[in-house]
Amino acid sequence: MTIEQLSASRAHGGVQGVYRHASAATGTDMVFSVFVPDHAPDARLPVVWYLSGLTCTHANVTEKGEFRATCAELGLIFVAPDTSPRGDGVADDPGYDLGQGAGFYVDAVRAPWAPHFAMRTYIETELPALVAAHFPADMARQSIMGHSMGGHGALTIGLRNPGRFRAVSAFAPIVAPSQVPWGQKALSAYLGDDRAAWRAHDAVALIEDGARLPELLVDQGMDDAFLGEQLRPELLAAACADAGIPLTLRRHIGYDHSYYFISTLMADQLRWHGARLAGAAGPEGVGPEGVGPEGVGQGAG
Amino acid sequence: MTIEQLSASRAHGGVQGVYRHASAATGTDMVFSVFVPDHAPDARLPVVWYLSGLTCTHANVTEKGEFRATCAELGLIFVAPDTSPRGDGVADDPGYDLGQGAGFYVDAVRAPWAPHFAMRTYIETELPALVAAHFPADMARQSIMGHSMGGHGALTIGLRNPGRFRAVSAFAPIVAPSQVPWGQKALSAYLGDDRAAWRAHDAVALIEDGARLPELLVDQGMDDAFLGEQLRPELLAAACADAGIPLTLRRHIGYDHSYYFISTLMADQLRWHGARLAGAAGPEGVGPEGVGPEGVGQGAG
Repeated sequence: MTIEQLSASRAHGGVQGVYRHASAATGTDMVFSVFVPDHAPDARLPVVWYLSGLTCTHANVTEKGEFRATCAELGLIFVAPDTSPRGDGVADDPGYDLGQGAGFYVDAVRAPWAPHFAMRTYIETELPALVAAHFPADMARQSIMGHSMGGHGALTIGLRNPGRFRAVSAFAPIVAPSQVPWGQKALSAYLGDDRAAWRAHDAVALIEDGARLPELLVDQGMDDAFLGEQLRPELLAAACADAGIPLTLRRHIGYDHSYYFISTLMADQLRWHGARLAGAAGPEGVGPEGVGPEGVGQGAG
Repeated sequence: MTIEQLSASRAHGGVQGVYRHASAATGTDMVFSVFVPDHAPDARLPVVWYLSGLTCTHANVTEKGEFRATCAELGLIFVAPDTSPRGDGVADDPGYDLGQGAGFYVDAVRAPWAPHFAMRTYIETELPALVAAHFPADMARQSIMGHSMGGHGALTIGLRNPGRFRAVSAFAPIVAPSQVPWGQKALSAYLGDDRAAWRAHDAVALIEDGARLPELLVDQGMDDAFLGEQLRPELLAAACADAGIPLTLRRHIGYDHSYYFISTLMADQLRWHGARLAGAAGPEGVGPEGVGPEGVGQGAG
């Protein structure tokens, strides 16, 4: 489990690095970025995971996300993975919403995707071990956020791993891929036509099936071109209401789907995460055992 | 004097726009970006000019500069022009440091550059008129900053136009182009070999020749790969000391020449500008008459 540092730049009182490693999960080289604030020599810092949207690499949020000032202030490590395996030997699709840049955070089981498209295992298992081994990370204090397809990733990974993340939030997430064109195209390609298999990769379906989180935060721009057809936050609101999951859904008049929107809300979402990552136990008293799809916890459903 | 809006995105409680217009100065279409914070219907806001460095367009700082939050908080319009004329009919050079992307903020007099490379006139005269006409700008309250070649632009335009800018600052500027390879290559190509003609485009030479500003702020990264050969802030420090211009030169250990460095210091430089742009007169009492190359003002030289 070695990693190669591609670059490291001092920024906002910390170091913004970009790294490459040979991934066992994807069978390809993978690139990710990590921001580490200055810290005491033996300190371990909380980790915020940021999952990116369709077409993005680690670079989009790293360059445009405006996260470093707040992460440095709050002492948060910020990890930004890629959104798929890439390279000449990796399958792809002419569409921007399938294949390279569009891994959808699932482990593909169908050809031609299965050999490399294992983004669920990569994000849930392989990369956390790598981050734990190579960075001053307190893996008992993690949180996760994401944008669009990455918001889908953050919500589903959070819901499937109760207790792992002290905070789960999203910017303009795909909340119900089974019900929208982006998700239907990707999930049928990667997982096949058995829609039962899709439910573990659909935040609304996971909640319907009993998965719980103590709370959720979602920011959504109301001039987002994908709002009505692809994102449909009202489906998440209904599922959370039925399940008794407190959802803070903030609608922002005039904002679109871009990093102009994300960067506007980034500091605020990070402060929400930071409040839940501070101290030895989260404000809701969520320990490593957490609240899970068994319905344990404060949820009503 | 019409402009075409290429894009407009809501961000940080304001609008980030990108615009194109047919420039009389360059004889080409030119693209620039403007951030306008929300404001009262008939308000006029101060204007901060940001001049970019070699290879950059308006897009680099617009995407990576992390200026919007502070500009929105302080009520500052932020204008980011391109660094040269561009296009198929425009001369270019294989080097990144001459031709397109490297206009050096001068009006070229030599072939093949003279027909289009008129960035001095464009930035000093044409674009300010356009900004005044199309945006809610208080042109009595302007300031200017820039990075690298754009720091050279900010310093020289500030020094040549006393009283126009209430604040002049730079990130890692080229302070003495006549004395460094980047500047010697560009100024000889654009202006010819008569070094006397270069002095109006060299901040150190302008100060030696009597130009004055009430104060200057410069941030410089100490791991900047261009520090010793191209930037040489010690030459500006010496000229300011001789001339009695208060220069705040902040050296930042470990920081490089990139936007990671710029974005780290952006909010702080904007606050320095904002303090000087607030109110009807600057804190030093610099009015429209200003202090000039005639040696009027508090300078000792």
